[in-house]
Amino acid sequence: MTKPAPLLIRNVRPMAGSSANIFVRDGVIADSASSGGEVPGDITVIDGQNAILLPGFVDAHTHIDKTFWGFPWQRHTAGPLITDKIDNERRVLRTLNYPTFEQASNQVRQSIRMGTTHIRSHVDVETETKLAGIEAILEVRDAFADSVTIEIVAFPQRGLLTLPGTLELMETAIAAGADLVGGIDPSSLERDPAGHLDAVFGIAERRDVGIDIHLHEPGVLGAFSIELIAERTKVLGMQGRVNISHAFCLGMLDDAYLGTLTEKLLEARISIMSHAPGFIEFPPLRRLHDAGVLICSGSDGIRDSWGPYGNADMLEKAMMLGYRSNFRRDEDLELTIEIVTKGGAAVMAQDSYGLEPGCNADLVLVPGETLAEAVVSRRPRSLVIKGGNIVARDDKCLV
Amino acid sequence: MTKPAPLLIRNVRPMAGSSANIFVRDGVIADSASSGGEVPGDITVIDGQNAILLPGFVDAHTHIDKTFWGFPWQRHTAGPLITDKIDNERRVLRTLNYPTFEQASNQVRQSIRMGTTHIRSHVDVETETKLAGIEAILEVRDAFADSVTIEIVAFPQRGLLTLPGTLELMETAIAAGADLVGGIDPSSLERDPAGHLDAVFGIAERRDVGIDIHLHEPGVLGAFSIELIAERTKVLGMQGRVNISHAFCLGMLDDAYLGTLTEKLLEARISIMSHAPGFIEFPPLRRLHDAGVLICSGSDGIRDSWGPYGNADMLEKAMMLGYRSNFRRDEDLELTIEIVTKGGAAVMAQDSYGLEPGCNADLVLVPGETLAEAVVSRRPRSLVIKGGNIVARDDKCLV
Repeated sequence: MTKPAPLLIRNVRPMAGSSANIFVRDGVIADSASSGGEVPGDITVIDGQNAILLPGFVDAHTHIDKTFWGFPWQRHTAGPLITDKIDNERRVLRTLNYPTFEQASNQVRQSIRMGTTHIRSHVDVETETKLAGIEAILEVRDAFADSVTIEIVAFPQRGLLTLPGTLELMETAIAAGADLVGGIDPSSLERDPAGHLDAVFGIAERRDVGIDIHLHEPGVLGAFSIELIAERTKVLGMQGRVNISHAFCLGMLDDAYLGTLTEKLLEARISIMSHAPGFIEFPPLRRLHDAGVLICSGSDGIRDSWGPYGNADMLEKAMMLGYRSNFRRDEDLELTIEIVTKGGAAVMAQDSYGLEPGCNADLVLVPGETLAEAVVSRRPRSLVIKGGNIVARDDKCLV
Repeated sequence: MTKPAPLLIRNVRPMAGSSANIFVRDGVIADSASSGGEVPGDITVIDGQNAILLPGFVDAHTHIDKTFWGFPWQRHTAGPLITDKIDNERRVLRTLNYPTFEQASNQVRQSIRMGTTHIRSHVDVETETKLAGIEAILEVRDAFADSVTIEIVAFPQRGLLTLPGTLELMETAIAAGADLVGGIDPSSLERDPAGHLDAVFGIAERRDVGIDIHLHEPGVLGAFSIELIAERTKVLGMQGRVNISHAFCLGMLDDAYLGTLTEKLLEARISIMSHAPGFIEFPPLRRLHDAGVLICSGSDGIRDSWGPYGNADMLEKAMMLGYRSNFRRDEDLELTIEIVTKGGAAVMAQDSYGLEPGCNADLVLVPGETLAEAVVSRRPRSLVIKGGNIVARDDKCLV
């Protein structure tokens, strides 16, 4: 992509505050003083129409390799168990045989349209398709490099040790360019919690990459897994590089055990991802946040063989986080905005993220009155900017 | 309003089935045979563009007298208890002092825009504002009589017996034109379950009106209230005229007790309303429906002093019912459509509701592939018709 032209966005309200003008040069937010007076001749001037300016949304947990977004509707018929859904997925994906590049591109364009500038996607690694998914998503990452930041987690959906050959494929996936190593339900799916986690942390240590583990395990079984993860994180000096996704168990524990576990999360600087599930307990966001635990959110699967819901709108996800948490006060809805912006960016270790001068110009404009009002109204995005490039405008993706 | 001109809506898919033409004459759906060949000169022909045709949505539980929809955003600061919210509401409403007619009209227009043709609204009756709310909503009902059917429940939000004078006001509200008598938490709020319910059923018997009771009480306390309601319904021969709203307790009981209580609901033909709350257990929709219990849904409060959520979109409510119930199969999402259409219409005793010839032409057109896809996508409504009148088109309310 050609170097983006300087932008002057007039009349926007950063974080729903007072009206301001934002000057973007060389893909970063320039000091507002530097735009004073002189406006370069080749500058693009945009009227923000008093909309709320936010840093771009961060979708810190999704599965862009599996979505049916943009394809004909698939009737859902799978049974209720996770194993039903894993089996059903294999059958459905084999039958449909959609090109992964196209699946992912469809979802990524929808994400960009809704104001997402950063995506962390888990990508299946298993012995049947081997690295085909990883390779396709590496291509997607390159194709959209100027429009959205994509981080790839190599994800052993069907098991790491229980499906022989997967461990080697995972290691190869990281060597091929995947950014993080994933894991899944060390006890309930893998049947060997220490073995699973040793394998996951082993790859991470050898390859010097972070970790993001799917943890659906309930109650004290899930809590035990969190303890094992925290122990390994500390021993290996991986503080700040491990995320646990879902962690439903944190919503199922008694107060005392939750307190103990929160301490362990803080010591290991483990972050938590919740997508606000519809039907099961989930982490107490306000309590964890106030204790200092870093929290992010994500779309999870969007319209795939696992389930029909989702639209890649992280502002709608903020609403769901609030609705499921019984957040009614403005200050609590403001926390949901923090989770889908700063929280996700911190989990993805994006140092130049934010609205301060010098930050990457990864921005979204949302019409609205206040942050809380924007969350519940979820209006179409009027402008989305990535690294100074306009990538969506008036509810349409331009890339 | 003038008598609606005949309409021919071409190329629509009733309930997402095969393409058909729908002929509307004198405000009702005409036999398709009667449209064969001859098309009257004054007929309005509309291209349905292959959209899904549904009977109009039914919002069977809302509070149009309290919404701030269309007014400036109010910061929410109330505490966590129901009594906090009742107290906060009085304070906020006194301060804001919005005209109830305008509040309700704002929400009603949004409902029409989203395809709702029937609304049951609870309207506060209490000793401070007395019947002012009821009188305003009676005016709204008249003003929108050609555009939406509105049923009014006289609702003792602040208590019936615990706030002396309310009982008499409730009786007067029914005499003034309210359609049903409401009640609220006989034990936890009123502190006298038998006394509260005797009073509610007393008014209903004397005035020959139906009953709709808010029941937030948890677990076996709520279940006890349901037993008392069912006993009175049977003794007074009010089967089919009593609805219990929320009934969170039905999601908190052990299997055996739930079975017993379901039998009592069926014997008394009591219907259940759930708005898919975000943070608390709620009735098991599939199980109750399959047992034969009539289920409806509603917006509940929209952007009012109780909470910031809601947009009067019953298709989004269908999505929430499904998301909260862990419905993933198409057949389960189809049940959510049934709840927000036929279920609500049956609770409101709308005999001429549906898509069959002879039914009132209360219709909504939703672009989409299948019913399940329409629920998760929630696209803007392309056409809304009430009694043969076009009341909304292309996502805009016309009245």
